[in-house]
Amino acid sequence: MDILKHMETALSDLHEAGNYRVFAELERHCNEFPKATFYEASGDTREVTVWCSNDYLGMGQNPIVTDRMTEVIRKCGAGAGGTRNISGTNHYHVLLERELADLHAKEAALIFTSGYVSNWAALGTLLSKIPGIIVYSDALNHASMIEGIRHSRCTKRLFRHNDPEHLAELMAADDPAAPKLVAFESVYSMDGDIAPIEAICDVADRFGAITYLDEVHAVGMYGPRGGGVAEREGLMDRLTVIEGTLGKAFGVMGGYITGPEVLIDFVRSFASGFIFTTALPPALAAGATASIRYLKDHELERQAHKANVAKVRSALNSRGIPHMDNPSHIVPVMVGNASKCKWISDVLLSDFGIYVQPINYPTVPVGTERLRITPTPLHTESDIRHLTEALCSLWSQCALARAVA
Amino acid sequence: MDILKHMETALSDLHEAGNYRVFAELERHCNEFPKATFYEASGDTREVTVWCSNDYLGMGQNPIVTDRMTEVIRKCGAGAGGTRNISGTNHYHVLLERELADLHAKEAALIFTSGYVSNWAALGTLLSKIPGIIVYSDALNHASMIEGIRHSRCTKRLFRHNDPEHLAELMAADDPAAPKLVAFESVYSMDGDIAPIEAICDVADRFGAITYLDEVHAVGMYGPRGGGVAEREGLMDRLTVIEGTLGKAFGVMGGYITGPEVLIDFVRSFASGFIFTTALPPALAAGATASIRYLKDHELERQAHKANVAKVRSALNSRGIPHMDNPSHIVPVMVGNASKCKWISDVLLSDFGIYVQPINYPTVPVGTERLRITPTPLHTESDIRHLTEALCSLWSQCALARAVA
Ligand SMILES: Cc1ncc(COP(=O)(O)O)c(C=O)c1O
Ligand SMILES: Cc1ncc(COP(=O)(O)O)c(C=O)c1O
Repeated sequence: MDILKHMETALSDLHEAGNYRVFAELERHCNEFPKATFYEASGDTREVTVWCSNDYLGMGQNPIVTDRMTEVIRKCGAGAGGTRNISGTNHYHVLLERELADLHAKEAALIFTSGYVSNWAALGTLLSKIPGIIVYSDALNHASMIEGIRHSRCTKRLFRHNDPEHLAELMAADDPAAPKLVAFESVYSMDGDIAPIEAICDVADRFGAITYLDEVHAVGMYGPRGGGVAEREGLMDRLTVIEGTLGKAFGVMGGYITGPEVLIDFVRSFASGFIFTTALPPALAAGATASIRYLKDHELERQAHKANVAKVRSALNSRGIPHMDNPSHIVPVMVGNASKCKWISDVLLSDFGIYVQPINYPTVPVGTERLRITPTPLHTESDIRHLTEALCSLWSQCALARAVA
Repeated sequence: MDILKHMETALSDLHEAGNYRVFAELERHCNEFPKATFYEASGDTREVTVWCSNDYLGMGQNPIVTDRMTEVIRKCGAGAGGTRNISGTNHYHVLLERELADLHAKEAALIFTSGYVSNWAALGTLLSKIPGIIVYSDALNHASMIEGIRHSRCTKRLFRHNDPEHLAELMAADDPAAPKLVAFESVYSMDGDIAPIEAICDVADRFGAITYLDEVHAVGMYGPRGGGVAEREGLMDRLTVIEGTLGKAFGVMGGYITGPEVLIDFVRSFASGFIFTTALPPALAAGATASIRYLKDHELERQAHKANVAKVRSALNSRGIPHMDNPSHIVPVMVGNASKCKWISDVLLSDFGIYVQPINYPTVPVGTERLRITPTPLHTESDIRHLTEALCSLWSQCALARAVA
């Protein structure tokens, strides 16, 4: 078998199905978010407004963060210079871990190179090293959790998305003596719906399970100190582990888990994906710490963000542009067809200077293709108007259905 | 079963076996590498000389790198703001990928959040998506490769470390029609030995296998442009994939693969660990690019580094401190006993201001515990003398055997 030929065929299949991904090459402009320079394949550039960033609050350009990062680069250099165990633990890692434990009111925290690695390594370790453990995983959990679970090779039950009753049914059918872990997310990033955290914790408690909550799309965003949906709902103590990222609302990069001291020490001591890799650059740790601290004390960004999300929704409503209703900050504008979705995205870019990446299969199911719009506090009234007008005209050209007002 | 209790027991076992890890909390001093501040558990601090960093050439404090990083933070902000597909591809990622492809004379490159993730995701994807593929893996391959292979669940053969004949034997016993991949490293980081790359490629060619070489401990360090051992030996075109890190000699953080366009595009399109994670901060990409470019054009750091490695070896020899002989830049000083190794490391720190992490099981086999010393071009003659004197006096106190001069 010719291996490269096989790859070529697989890629052709992607092309044919309309699922081949071309990355938009951008240069973000610090101090002018959400503006960016877009690089064409030809090398030509043009200015665009980004409407699909996960730097939800624009903290990536907040001087509190960027100044701290440049300061710590001047102080400690570029990289950490080693794995956490071999010369790579920096003072700023330790400070960040303390800050995170405090954020989620947990005994301890552990940082990873990304949210992906935190889920993969933490779940992979917990589930492979506790004999006989059964994991109950929400059917729409993120790829990083799925891979961690898969890695562990433990017994797995999928419960219907956001369905505590189904979870209870599955748990009731299993050996009461078996150790159990429930893994789920607070804000699901593609539909923007939010888990019934309390009800899920109630079921977990009833069956003696520990709980693992991914708050990647919620940290910095919800709760009086940006501790996430669990904080907002006064439920942080009901979760055994709260996991998050430093790369979305906090605007930097990296991931983490928080939880009981012994559990954190266990993952620290046994997780291959934590142990055998160079630690985060001190400047990233320090920048993330500054971002977390700032958002603990400041409601401004969260309030402005909420207001802008509401404005985008009502502007879309006024033009009958259908978007998925949800209680979060994510505004999925439904197209429902891969090639139309891609076409709209292309024209938004070429004719309107608006960049929104089309979201197609396999990220979302076929038939639910969408533009996933993420308003930030930095989008202006005029940005919102421009987006709505543009979508409105494309909706007509595409003969797409309007939502009933 | 009480899950947390189980974890407690596992941690007590580690303590008892002398394998519980306590991380040294450091603050590196940019412009004064290898000096750092060491934080005691009490919060007290003291100045130390680091002798076990993987920032082998001190590029982490090179102004070429740090200035570029601060500049790009000022220009583009802190984080990338999204996954590569959804608003997270930055101009500086694209430039870095071009630079890496050029470094290894390959058609294309793909960056990941770490070297660990690059191995895990690339091998995991290649080996799970090519039907019937068999992997031949060096018995001492790094954890990240092992996990990627494990993840793929493909048929695996372990060949004896650095043994092309055993590799040939194993290959001859398998179906000639089965697609095959050989995965190995150039410099093995704990023993510092170097693979017989040409002989392994010869065997791979004979059986029609593709080859995957981890040059994590060699990039920036070997070859006229820092392309690694394969570059030094004129063998880059014999490897299908060359993998590396941005976090060791290049002084920053991140990982990558380089190879044929179609293979890179295949991994880009199918690897979960590449797709579903926030991209590297633009400033890290730009800093790494600056580092790579600098080391392409400058021999100075490599030469000074080689000279210092030789000085450390001969100073150790003159005092009969046994170290493993190898053709690389890694100087494993053999202790052969976990508690003595830890004791020496503790006293080096407390009495001599020298920080070298003890390397114990499971990183190395029981009975081969060591101090893994990594000289840099920044260690002075006096640093070297101080290290040697300190080891010499501890060797006597510990009644450890001397090497025959
Ligand atoms: C729910 C969820 N968890 C984890 C991650 C991974 O986090 P990170 O981007 O920090 O790797 C993502 C997305 O990237 C996500 O959507
Ligand atoms: C051989 C080898 N490959 C890969 C890695 C992982 O690279 P990174 O530190 O960039 O994750 C390491 C060590 O960290 C290593 O020693």
